[in-house]
Amino acid sequence: MSDRLAQSKDAPTLGPTKFHDFVSAAPFPLELGGELPGVTLRYETYGTLLPDKSNAILVAHALSGDHHVAGRYQSDDAKPGWWDCFVGPGKAIDTNRFFVIGINCIGGCRGSTGPASIDSRTQKTFGGFFPEITLGDIVRGQRLVIQHLGIKKLHAVIGGSMGGMQALLWSSDYPTEVGRIAVLAAGLSQSPMAIALNAVSRACVESDPQWQGGHYQIGSGPDNGLSIGRMISHISYLSSAAFDQKFGRTRVVGAQPSDPVYWQVESYLNHQGESFVKRFDANSWLRITRAVDRFDLTARAAAGQLFRPHGPEVLAIGFSSDWLYPTSELRMVVAAATAAGVNATYHEVITDAGHDGFLLPDTGLTVRLHAFLG
Amino acid sequence: MSDRLAQSKDAPTLGPTKFHDFVSAAPFPLELGGELPGVTLRYETYGTLLPDKSNAILVAHALSGDHHVAGRYQSDDAKPGWWDCFVGPGKAIDTNRFFVIGINCIGGCRGSTGPASIDSRTQKTFGGFFPEITLGDIVRGQRLVIQHLGIKKLHAVIGGSMGGMQALLWSSDYPTEVGRIAVLAAGLSQSPMAIALNAVSRACVESDPQWQGGHYQIGSGPDNGLSIGRMISHISYLSSAAFDQKFGRTRVVGAQPSDPVYWQVESYLNHQGESFVKRFDANSWLRITRAVDRFDLTARAAAGQLFRPHGPEVLAIGFSSDWLYPTSELRMVVAAATAAGVNATYHEVITDAGHDGFLLPDTGLTVRLHAFLG
Repeated sequence: MSDRLAQSKDAPTLGPTKFHDFVSAAPFPLELGGELPGVTLRYETYGTLLPDKSNAILVAHALSGDHHVAGRYQSDDAKPGWWDCFVGPGKAIDTNRFFVIGINCIGGCRGSTGPASIDSRTQKTFGGFFPEITLGDIVRGQRLVIQHLGIKKLHAVIGGSMGGMQALLWSSDYPTEVGRIAVLAAGLSQSPMAIALNAVSRACVESDPQWQGGHYQIGSGPDNGLSIGRMISHISYLSSAAFDQKFGRTRVVGAQPSDPVYWQVESYLNHQGESFVKRFDANSWLRITRAVDRFDLTARAAAGQLFRPHGPEVLAIGFSSDWLYPTSELRMVVAAATAAGVNATYHEVITDAGHDGFLLPDTGLTVRLHAFLG
Repeated sequence: MSDRLAQSKDAPTLGPTKFHDFVSAAPFPLELGGELPGVTLRYETYGTLLPDKSNAILVAHALSGDHHVAGRYQSDDAKPGWWDCFVGPGKAIDTNRFFVIGINCIGGCRGSTGPASIDSRTQKTFGGFFPEITLGDIVRGQRLVIQHLGIKKLHAVIGGSMGGMQALLWSSDYPTEVGRIAVLAAGLSQSPMAIALNAVSRACVESDPQWQGGHYQIGSGPDNGLSIGRMISHISYLSSAAFDQKFGRTRVVGAQPSDPVYWQVESYLNHQGESFVKRFDANSWLRITRAVDRFDLTARAAAGQLFRPHGPEVLAIGFSSDWLYPTSELRMVVAAATAAGVNATYHEVITDAGHDGFLLPDTGLTVRLHAFLG
């Protein structure tokens, strides 16, 4: 089996992918109050939905991800979708068997309704007027698409980081509508230190004079603040060992001590920040990081309202060097599920990759995910 | 003994302290090239120097510390010196027996020559023209003060974080001039991840429009950038457990979801950033963090030029939850010293306080430091 599942260059790949837009003109009420006048949700699917619609898997993206989970739009795309290593024909989430759905989240900036979208009431971008959202809102948005596709029960919801939090919310809010959840690199709540990192990242954006309270013109936003804010976050996605291995104490070739960019790691982080700005909206960053910071299911778990007997089965996957969502948090997910009488399994990936480990190929994880999906 | 050494409120305290300025008009050459036209070094001493000058201990400060190690200038000072918990009559570093010296580092902004000082050649502040420095330069500056005091051999050099790096440099550069070193919460080199954190912190300062390439007027500098940069660093000084214990997921009383400061931890970090700006110069922050990033004694250690037989004895102290300078780095210091035939001891403080643990009272550490000093 492991041969068949290996992520070799010879593995069959998806053909060209394309996205769809689900548009609802109905007001979309928000958990914290207020509403969106309507929502557009951009999504992408892979594989074929069975006539009984029993083989659908929702893959929920992380903070900076989107609906483009796997494959390429054109054969010469520089990169495939963000989880291409696990989603495709013969891969861990086998699109020969499953119908996989990726949906850009509400609040995002990759096609779904977010701060950079036009508010139909004003015919202007929402900008700083875009309301505060929660991950519960994001999950309710996903459910609109799932219902639109006529799916009554998802075979599974799978996600890493913020995507894992959404999988937990599916289990909590719609336990009869999902068969199993796989939670990677996330926990029952956002930890205070993770909030702190997001808070400083937001401070970078909000202190950039071009932010203007969120009312910037698209294209002339707080690029500098967002770039630095992303650099901070990026550090938290790696581990100290990863920094050692990727960069060591290497200097930029030819750099002088007084040059602003002196270390290779500095140059790398600058590049990460700059390239992020090209594909992400600052207000989306603010709204989504705040939604993540608000995530807290500990009280529900303690009250027995998160996991229920006969509710979705749980697979929690920790990454040994992840210090943003340490493995202890994944083990707590399994402990809470087990205590509630739910079948739950913990799997640990031993890696130096840190939090970003969930985005990287891993044979053990491939086998485990494949087995979990049945 | 532990009773006598306890940091109780009844422990004898230092009387009012005062600082001195050592001024040298001689050009001070710098390791990376160039020179300072002269140096002023602000220092403070505690206790009495024996006639044979054998009882002097240099306590080297960390990034944001200064010469004011212990005691109060006035009885109503809000806070004593930064290591008052370990330095004073009857304390770990007992000023009834030892003559303790604190010196503000070159490049600093608390009285010693730094970017905010007047350049005697131009009669203007150095500002952005202040040259790049190294920790070796800082140690050579300290040595001028030690020589000025007529001390031929220090009983010990002790420091945490950047101060610990300086203790290692004393052992490397002047092995016959120091009897023993105590290195707390530091390693043989600045790790790539620690460089990354400093790099992003610097990016905050340098992207603040008020920075102006370092040529700002004192008093109207890049306060905002420095404040956020400090917030980033501050996160790295704590641990996830410390964040849990100090703040949890507590919200600011009355805060609404859309308020910029919503979480207690956000409010705390803001306060840390804002209060730092009042006492620190942005250019000093840039020069000193770069000096720290450059610190790397691994090649010297491997070549047997860091520790030498009959060289200074070594005590290395790690803090279990320190992820900026993990305990493995302290153990490497001891391994390198031991391999070179030097008496070396490792002591670990079990704490949730993270890197900042070295600034907090700890009875075990008190006893260990006291014993090490003989």
